[in-house]
Amino acid sequence: MSDAGCRLSLNIETTHSLTLEQAVEVAAAAGLEAIGVWRDRVQAVGVAKAARLVSDAGLRVSSLCRGGFLTASTSEGIRAALDDNLRALDEAAALGAPELVMVVGGLPEGDRDLVGARHRVAERIAELAPEAVARGVRLALEPLHPMYAADRAVLSTLDQALDMAAPHPAEAVGVVVDTFHIYWDPRAASAIARAGLEGRISSYQVCDFNLPIASDALLSRGMMGDGVIDFTHWTTAVAAAGYTGDVEVEIFNADIWARPPRDVVGQMVERYTTLVAPFL
Amino acid sequence: MSDAGCRLSLNIETTHSLTLEQAVEVAAAAGLEAIGVWRDRVQAVGVAKAARLVSDAGLRVSSLCRGGFLTASTSEGIRAALDDNLRALDEAAALGAPELVMVVGGLPEGDRDLVGARHRVAERIAELAPEAVARGVRLALEPLHPMYAADRAVLSTLDQALDMAAPHPAEAVGVVVDTFHIYWDPRAASAIARAGLEGRISSYQVCDFNLPIASDALLSRGMMGDGVIDFTHWTTAVAAAGYTGDVEVEIFNADIWARPPRDVVGQMVERYTTLVAPFL
Repeated sequence: MSDAGCRLSLNIETTHSLTLEQAVEVAAAAGLEAIGVWRDRVQAVGVAKAARLVSDAGLRVSSLCRGGFLTASTSEGIRAALDDNLRALDEAAALGAPELVMVVGGLPEGDRDLVGARHRVAERIAELAPEAVARGVRLALEPLHPMYAADRAVLSTLDQALDMAAPHPAEAVGVVVDTFHIYWDPRAASAIARAGLEGRISSYQVCDFNLPIASDALLSRGMMGDGVIDFTHWTTAVAAAGYTGDVEVEIFNADIWARPPRDVVGQMVERYTTLVAPFL
Repeated sequence: MSDAGCRLSLNIETTHSLTLEQAVEVAAAAGLEAIGVWRDRVQAVGVAKAARLVSDAGLRVSSLCRGGFLTASTSEGIRAALDDNLRALDEAAALGAPELVMVVGGLPEGDRDLVGARHRVAERIAELAPEAVARGVRLALEPLHPMYAADRAVLSTLDQALDMAAPHPAEAVGVVVDTFHIYWDPRAASAIARAGLEGRISSYQVCDFNLPIASDALLSRGMMGDGVIDFTHWTTAVAAAGYTGDVEVEIFNADIWARPPRDVVGQMVERYTTLVAPFL
């Protein structure tokens, strides 16, 4: 593949039905060099074996999904969240994953205080940042589309993620630029430039925003070109910000999950090659 | 009712199945003094008769919904949008509605250029602003939740709406603060303060954000108290910004539409009285 082609990474959620071993095989067969992995599928085989599977196939891990869920307000909840994130950092280090994607969590049950929840996330990040650095892994804060603000991530914009990262060194805390989550944001282009200047772009994730929104709103992510997102615009912005890392494709979509995974990955390579790679 | 009670306005979309005449009757019977009306139900009886129905019941019109849909890129599309908005301004003036709510429109079919669409909206607002002033009506720009950015309103945040309003006098262009649309926005509290300082709060609309998101994402609006929004927080912010106008309740929700409208309005008064009015 071309240089830009070498940067394409299959996030294994795109091939949802596959085990880690199968996803690795499909990715390698498609000529990819990188893969984004999820903890549940890593844990299913054990982290040491997972690391071997990936490296034996000649792949690198672009990111581990995911840490986070840091909004608990009870001392037990806080402790459990910290412990789980420390395990996630250990797993990322063992896999050689440079970035641990952080979905920060929504409001605790019955709680309506977004400001308070954001404050607790910032406190937890401050506790985890030195642990991340010690393991050579970066906490990659992912702002999620505002439709998930209450139940999934109280972090909704890139600027907000950068503000939360600001107290920490760039090697400790970065941000994820995911087209699905940020394409609507009139400030996102300048936030990408800011993230580049600050050396904090942890990951560039591409997928489309499909309309109408799926009846399960989590599954509205689409193959690039099938939705409303202008990949020329966003890819150009990310490239101009100096990002030279992997480009992950992560698609939650019931129709795509129902198709043969090899076909999906083939189409992913094709769409990436025409819609994304030329602007990197 | 109390002073705060006198500010409660029934947006007639909350009683979706009713004609204008029926909605006016239900609102008056509930002791309300204001009503927010929609053009289709006004046009169904004719604007002169609509104005009589409302004033004969001792009500005022808090706002007319809605103008907008200004993103067309063809000359015919632009002309049609301007003509329709001039008619809407005429209707608002005839009804004595001080504010014409503007849902600015999404991307034209097949178009992915949000930046260009926003630019066209700004151009159309510049054309309409003097027409609004001439009729004693204000264009009330409504930022919609980002989940509607592509298909309904390319205006997604209060700050963006205020930036678009900025070239125009405050009596020409204002903004709508709708809790459903803005509750997730970490900058919204400061944007409300800014809107107050600039004298641009056209309307305060309250309804809740229900989870999970409804299978038709347009219908996720909920009765205050049923969802995730902190009405103390937002109402306090709007009051601190100096807003003294009506507070509209506009709920699109299939379950609420299926209930007897009088019961819905009764519950609306009760929830408003406990969750919103104390903080005005």
